[in-house]
Amino acid sequence: MSTEKKPILYSYFRSSASWRVRIALNWKGIDYEYKAIDLLKNENNTEEYLKVNPTQKVPAFITKDSKLLSQSEAIIEYLDEAYPDRPLIPGCPYKRALVREISQIIACDIHPIQNLGVLKRIAGDDMEKRTAWANESIRLGFKGLENRLEHTSGAYSVGDSITMADIFVCAMVGNAKRWGVEMSSFPIITKINEVCSKLPAFANAIPDKQPDCSK
Amino acid sequence: MSTEKKPILYSYFRSSASWRVRIALNWKGIDYEYKAIDLLKNENNTEEYLKVNPTQKVPAFITKDSKLLSQSEAIIEYLDEAYPDRPLIPGCPYKRALVREISQIIACDIHPIQNLGVLKRIAGDDMEKRTAWANESIRLGFKGLENRLEHTSGAYSVGDSITMADIFVCAMVGNAKRWGVEMSSFPIITKINEVCSKLPAFANAIPDKQPDCSK
Repeated sequence: MSTEKKPILYSYFRSSASWRVRIALNWKGIDYEYKAIDLLKNENNTEEYLKVNPTQKVPAFITKDSKLLSQSEAIIEYLDEAYPDRPLIPGCPYKRALVREISQIIACDIHPIQNLGVLKRIAGDDMEKRTAWANESIRLGFKGLENRLEHTSGAYSVGDSITMADIFVCAMVGNAKRWGVEMSSFPIITKINEVCSKLPAFANAIPDKQPDCSK
Repeated sequence: MSTEKKPILYSYFRSSASWRVRIALNWKGIDYEYKAIDLLKNENNTEEYLKVNPTQKVPAFITKDSKLLSQSEAIIEYLDEAYPDRPLIPGCPYKRALVREISQIIACDIHPIQNLGVLKRIAGDDMEKRTAWANESIRLGFKGLENRLEHTSGAYSVGDSITMADIFVCAMVGNAKRWGVEMSSFPIITKINEVCSKLPAFANAIPDKQPDCSK
């Protein structure tokens, strides 16, 4: 009998960063325990969760040997090294750098300025103001991303293989749709999302399919 | 006679993300050409710069074989692979993940919401409002970062060797000081910054030492 523990993902169904890690875990076929943290109920700000993740963010990942990692890209790169089948980071150094670049255009330039914490500080509970800010932030960011993908993409974000970059693109398009971003100016982003969304690893990671989804 | 070209860094002296890459280039002893892009004069929004970097951000790095990379962390990871002496990413997979995690806590959670583009959108030219927003953003982020460093740090951010994470910490402390963040609640961050700032690679990368610094 195996006594090996499953890794644990602390996730919120709607969190785009948690979504990315869910796709990677599915892609690799890694069995894991899902623990829901309700950001709307501030469950991330409890003493209990502080002990799990000192930065009090989701996602947090507990490896099967009980070590903590946070930050979606760091977790996915770790998974790619620890579970090398179905690689998400290419072998070629320049392509690997491009995959990180595309991922970080989203993770550093687009996603952070439209996440829940920032929207609360900017707009409080004013949903119209939240939507206007988030929509504009994503639109501005997608302009640069689309321009860059013109140079890096083939069938997918970087060349013709699925990589970590596609994970970041798809989870970000999820947010874009939620905030009503008109996608017709972004044909490459749209195409990548359409192709990847049909794959089971991506399809099963969407917010609606998570145990804590409150439909 | 060598015909090898120098790599090029498109940088703005005050840009924290450019600053990170300057430290890494200095640390590795890589000779490079510095090209200044004045963000206050919107030099990043010209047609000419669009051809250099389709996302119109700094830093942009042109490798010695003329390939573009943007995003500071992607550039530094590329440099660490292309110039392996004086490594900035550790060999141990979990430590490597921690270095990425600490870097991304800064690059994804703290830095983006206080950068120039966001401050302009939130506060226009109102310097008091800019300062209040930037100060609060960094303070909130440093709380989580300090908590996490309690678990990961030794003499430096991750264990007892200098890594990419220290580069991100020092450039962020630079911004924190600029926006008047009271640092006494963050003793580990303060200590790492004090120790690293004295090293030539870090000391020569500060905004004041760059050719485009307008003192």
